Amino acid sequence: MDEAAAHPYVPRDLKLPGYVPISMSMSTILAVYLGASLFVVTFVWFLLGRKKAHLDRLLMCWWAFTGLTHMVLEGYFVFSPDFFKDNTSCYLAEVWKEYSKGDSRYAGRDSAVIAVEGITAVIEGPASLLAVYAIAKGKSYSYVLQLAISLGQLYGCLVYFITAFLEGDNFATNSFYYYSYYIFANGWWVLIPFLISYRCWNKICESANGVETKIKKKTR
Amino acid sequence: MDEAAAHPYVPRDLKLPGYVPISMSMSTILAVYLGASLFVVTFVWFLLGRKKAHLDRLLMCWWAFTGLTHMVLEGYFVFSPDFFKDNTSCYLAEVWKEYSKGDSRYAGRDSAVIAVEGITAVIEGPASLLAVYAIAKGKSYSYVLQLAISLGQLYGCLVYFITAFLEGDNFATNSFYYYSYYIFANGWWVLIPFLISYRCWNKICESANGVETKIKKKTR
Repeated sequence: MDEAAAHPYVPRDLKLPGYVPISMSMSTILAVYLGASLFVVTFVWFLLGRKKAHLDRLLMCWWAFTGLTHMVLEGYFVFSPDFFKDNTSCYLAEVWKEYSKGDSRYAGRDSAVIAVEGITAVIEGPASLLAVYAIAKGKSYSYVLQLAISLGQLYGCLVYFITAFLEGDNFATNSFYYYSYYIFANGWWVLIPFLISYRCWNKICESANGVETKIKKKTR
Repeated sequence: MDEAAAHPYVPRDLKLPGYVPISMSMSTILAVYLGASLFVVTFVWFLLGRKKAHLDRLLMCWWAFTGLTHMVLEGYFVFSPDFFKDNTSCYLAEVWKEYSKGDSRYAGRDSAVIAVEGITAVIEGPASLLAVYAIAKGKSYSYVLQLAISLGQLYGCLVYFITAFLEGDNFATNSFYYYSYYIFANGWWVLIPFLISYRCWNKICESANGVETKIKKKTR
């Protein structure tokens, strides 16, 4: 087999010299991610969020989950240009070797993908954990912070999908990986930030209206 | 001269088959842009903003200026993949032939640039004009809208600069164009959105605090 084809990714002419094949199965990779996420969510729900309303608890779980995903998984990707050469079965390298079947731009170090993932890992990740704290403590910046991160996630997804489309949308190994990894997995980071943005936008407008009414009453 | 070198852009091996040289001078291009912008700003300052405080008037001018820049200039770029072949001396094509001296990714149709410019032209442009209206009418969504657009502009600039850096930062014809077009011109869209985000963030937190105090007083 020639070097260009010694990996499972599409396009087939993608050059990945030194590629070491995935050693973990898809189910192992998913089980570890879902297991770790379930642990985080359970911890936040029962410990950090125990005195809060259900929706706030759910939001705290989301922000902890997405923040750690951004920092740990996406952070590793951004700062590990050679993850596809990893031969130690490092879990984080395996994750990105597997995900690259849905979008080979990860293995190929596409600059738009790295830019978006860099902003996500370095800015949005820590900001998401701050959102957990802000909700827990009922901080006045809670809604505006959640809105800012959610809009950032939506902007990132837009750049991510538009650049793939402009470059021919041919980065998935097959349609199973295209729909399950590229569309379905990323879809959550479109749907949930959209819902949160909508809610926070309305909450902020309500506050502004409230203050306006108060000022009008005072000046009468 | 061979085809690859028949344009003034860097890298020299950039292929632009059918490139038609710029026919307008840099000073004409700048004068039209600055003149049109001055017209817009004067119109907004003296007519739309005449009953508002100075800072609100200034912000209305900014949003009108940036909104029209996004929609007209950047909108033209996004939907005109062949602008570098234009032989009619169309002003908008000349603008981008000239700007490409600071960043040849425009002439080269880099997908990250098109994605960011597309989001800017289609979403942020109309939203900026809405911000003019929101400030004029004192709408409750005024601050949150301005924050959302400004954060979008900052995100766009980050993607814009990071992708250029990752690809070798070698897209300017010479250091004059690099610093005047790529750094200085774009710098305004980092500085001003940053200042507006900061102000709107604080205003939104003040409102949230105000409502909180109000609710606390009521429930006593």
